[in-house]
Amino acid sequence: MPLASAEPRLRELRVELGARSYALQIGPGLLADPSRFDDFRGRNCRVVSDANVAPLYLEQLRQTLGLAAERAFILPAGETQKTLGNAEAVLDWLLANRFPRDGVLIALGGGVIGDLTGFVASIYQRGVDFLQLPTTLLAQVDSSVGGKTGVNHARGKNMIGAFHQPCAVIADTDTLRSLPPRELSAGLAEIIKCGLLADAEFFAWLEQHIDALRALDGERLGTAIERCCRLKAQIVARDERESIAGGPRALLNLGHTFGHAVETFTRYQTWLHGEAVGLGLCMAADLSARLAWIDADALARCTALVARAGLPVRPPVEMRVEDFRQLMQLDKKVAAGKLRLVLLRGLGDAVTTADFDEAAFAQTLAAFCGPAAAI
Amino acid sequence: MPLASAEPRLRELRVELGARSYALQIGPGLLADPSRFDDFRGRNCRVVSDANVAPLYLEQLRQTLGLAAERAFILPAGETQKTLGNAEAVLDWLLANRFPRDGVLIALGGGVIGDLTGFVASIYQRGVDFLQLPTTLLAQVDSSVGGKTGVNHARGKNMIGAFHQPCAVIADTDTLRSLPPRELSAGLAEIIKCGLLADAEFFAWLEQHIDALRALDGERLGTAIERCCRLKAQIVARDERESIAGGPRALLNLGHTFGHAVETFTRYQTWLHGEAVGLGLCMAADLSARLAWIDADALARCTALVARAGLPVRPPVEMRVEDFRQLMQLDKKVAAGKLRLVLLRGLGDAVTTADFDEAAFAQTLAAFCGPAAAI
Repeated sequence: MPLASAEPRLRELRVELGARSYALQIGPGLLADPSRFDDFRGRNCRVVSDANVAPLYLEQLRQTLGLAAERAFILPAGETQKTLGNAEAVLDWLLANRFPRDGVLIALGGGVIGDLTGFVASIYQRGVDFLQLPTTLLAQVDSSVGGKTGVNHARGKNMIGAFHQPCAVIADTDTLRSLPPRELSAGLAEIIKCGLLADAEFFAWLEQHIDALRALDGERLGTAIERCCRLKAQIVARDERESIAGGPRALLNLGHTFGHAVETFTRYQTWLHGEAVGLGLCMAADLSARLAWIDADALARCTALVARAGLPVRPPVEMRVEDFRQLMQLDKKVAAGKLRLVLLRGLGDAVTTADFDEAAFAQTLAAFCGPAAAI
Repeated sequence: MPLASAEPRLRELRVELGARSYALQIGPGLLADPSRFDDFRGRNCRVVSDANVAPLYLEQLRQTLGLAAERAFILPAGETQKTLGNAEAVLDWLLANRFPRDGVLIALGGGVIGDLTGFVASIYQRGVDFLQLPTTLLAQVDSSVGGKTGVNHARGKNMIGAFHQPCAVIADTDTLRSLPPRELSAGLAEIIKCGLLADAEFFAWLEQHIDALRALDGERLGTAIERCCRLKAQIVARDERESIAGGPRALLNLGHTFGHAVETFTRYQTWLHGEAVGLGLCMAADLSARLAWIDADALARCTALVARAGLPVRPPVEMRVEDFRQLMQLDKKVAAGKLRLVLLRGLGDAVTTADFDEAAFAQTLAAFCGPAAAI
């Protein structure tokens, strides 16, 4: 990888899933480049976006694709909008407009828009094509590969959803320039996660370049996004539907079981998903260290990188050990009543396990939960 | 096939879909036979049923599976209940009860319960196992094979749904004894369809045994159900997601595009799905005859068998040519604005085509639409 900053360039990769394989394009200026959309021009396209993203990029996309104004549905922005009710509103709109089975449903936005639109695409007339145009760092590294779609439920995040692969992903890195710094940090959490779980060299590269990434160095952002997407694509190709118990795909949930508990506790209203994952990485590393699976240095490096990315390393002060226990028990990874966690055997080496010491787990929760830490 | 009636027996077949293959058992007394449920005992099971079926068979199923009373959710009966709202009610119930990802969701009922429960199983935590216990003839021959799940929308039938294969189907033919005669006839429509589209010999067998089937001759019912399921299983194995345009799977929609128009027109409230399909078979045969693809004798045999099965051969008197046109245009098989229909090249020989004479189509609609027939 170049040490000096260079002009950002187009990167292309392919997610290999047999008949459901698709291409991913990453680079600057893609939303303004009609040649990127050659497969879609002339098809019946409809766009779903949100009130933050649409004013910035929808007009550009319309020009690039030659789309009429009424062909977009704009939702309010935010994780609280990722509901079955909003999915139904999009379905109603598509049906009212007689959107055909051979049309293309386009998600223009971050993870909320991508997950909700992908879910609608999966259940509209038993499945239609879905083109993903992620505009946040988190969506570009996380939601673009894997085909996980869904909406939240009052009783848990992503509790309603489907596996539905996009027909293509076009990630325009220029859109990251309009991203609030908090959102950028949230995306960095998933990038750090990729290094932590499978790639120690990449983790070290991140330690070196985390400031450049936060300063929106285009070429380095491209490098990080591509590396994460390649890693995810390899894992997803081996286990498309996360059906292998404790299989490779489950590793991508590193930090997520702790993180989901925080998101549910705060009703998706104050913490960003990536912020919760960042904290979750620290908690998973902490438990791994208490189990003596990683050493104190590795734990310190993990916590330091998460903090340098601008992410929280403590849960909300109101959150108690019992809140974590109760909310983690609802996690999709609970099998036969037993909580499964992704933990670290080293930097770049993660495992899924239900076989961890309960006392160590209790210590981790106590250490992170404000006043209870003193007990 | 035996001419004399014999003791009904257990029939088993397998739907071959790679990792999603599953077994189908057809026969008498299966709901009372614990050995049929060996794969499911000890797993976390939840049952969805309706207010007609539950009083008849739920207690039996509970004893067979050793299920507690609170493990069932009972919906009101009828096609009007096949809504996203009711799917959400089941999802809420499952989440409130922390139904785990490795549980088994069981549908006990007809097509409405099977389609809705299968859809819930497909989107609950991105998919859980789904065991189908069909209790109507229509569900035993039609919904048991193919993995089509879904709910209706005010703007059209099955507009929201997914492909989600069951992990097993257990069709107890004894449940057909409690079926109202209209429902039995509705099931016969799908059975006649199977003969019409792919099996002239079976069509002739049906002409011979239609009265025995209506009289609930158990062995003959078993024969008919098995034959239809085998035909469907072969077709579905070649085209699981109906993704081959004009491919074999589309043939299973014979009669359905006309039929769906009637169901939507009557708001799913007066016509049963099978009744609409029965009429649809007559309309498809009529159009095929006008195109000179089948002769007058084949048309007459088709119409006569549908009528002998106790099915309507005319649409509602209020329905006009324009109603058919408008509602058929919303059909999922409309591609690039062009209506595709399944038509007959002969008894036992169907094709999917968008290439039919518009004048002949207009004549068929006019001939079937009450007063307009005189024009």
